[in-house]
Amino acid sequence: MKALLIIAHGSRREDSNQEVRRLTAQLRQRAGQDYAEVHCAFLELAEPSIPEGIAQCIAQGAEEVVLLPYFLSAGRHVAKDIPAEMAKAQADHPAIRLRLAPYLGLAEGLIDALLRLAK
Amino acid sequence: MKALLIIAHGSRREDSNQEVRRLTAQLRQRAGQDYAEVHCAFLELAEPSIPEGIAQCIAQGAEEVVLLPYFLSAGRHVAKDIPAEMAKAQADHPAIRLRLAPYLGLAEGLIDALLRLAK
Repeated sequence: MKALLIIAHGSRREDSNQEVRRLTAQLRQRAGQDYAEVHCAFLELAEPSIPEGIAQCIAQGAEEVVLLPYFLSAGRHVAKDIPAEMAKAQADHPAIRLRLAPYLGLAEGLIDALLRLAK
Repeated sequence: MKALLIIAHGSRREDSNQEVRRLTAQLRQRAGQDYAEVHCAFLELAEPSIPEGIAQCIAQGAEEVVLLPYFLSAGRHVAKDIPAEMAKAQADHPAIRLRLAPYLGLAEGLIDALLRLAK
């Protein structure tokens, strides 16, 4: 069973964290059969943490977890912090397949989404 | 003539600003006849500033400028700072139509872009 884990930065502003949770709920509805579970986790300032989010997916039966950084640019968080968290989680759960998707800023669909938004 | 101005936060990390500029170049190629000009501007930490970006569009003949916040959540920057910059610019350029598009986090296409990215 495959799970998708959206990784956001996390904010002191709880509304921003709620926006991520709402987006995750929309993703869950649209994921269809691709992902039996869709959750979110936060690098800092909000919960669940990345290890907690991965553990939650595994507790619900995931054998593979795809981590998708919800970030617009490839700063330190995308380049180092998230891969480091993933490596630690992989060591904790050696039987689970963890995979890192490209970060949002690289999404092909972003251009079209922006052009539609501008209309 | 209509111009699209992508408003990013701006970063101390110049690579992140360059990512926005590359995205803007891609938008320019894909905008077709919808926007004769596509530029970017930064709220802080990078150039051009929002007033400079708007002035640049106008200098190139824009009669209407659509400002699109390249932000994932509706924090203070989206809710207050960008509208305030737009209001100031509108006072400086009363003959130009300035319009604020929804911020990226509200884009309908974001869900599909994320699901494709996870594959």
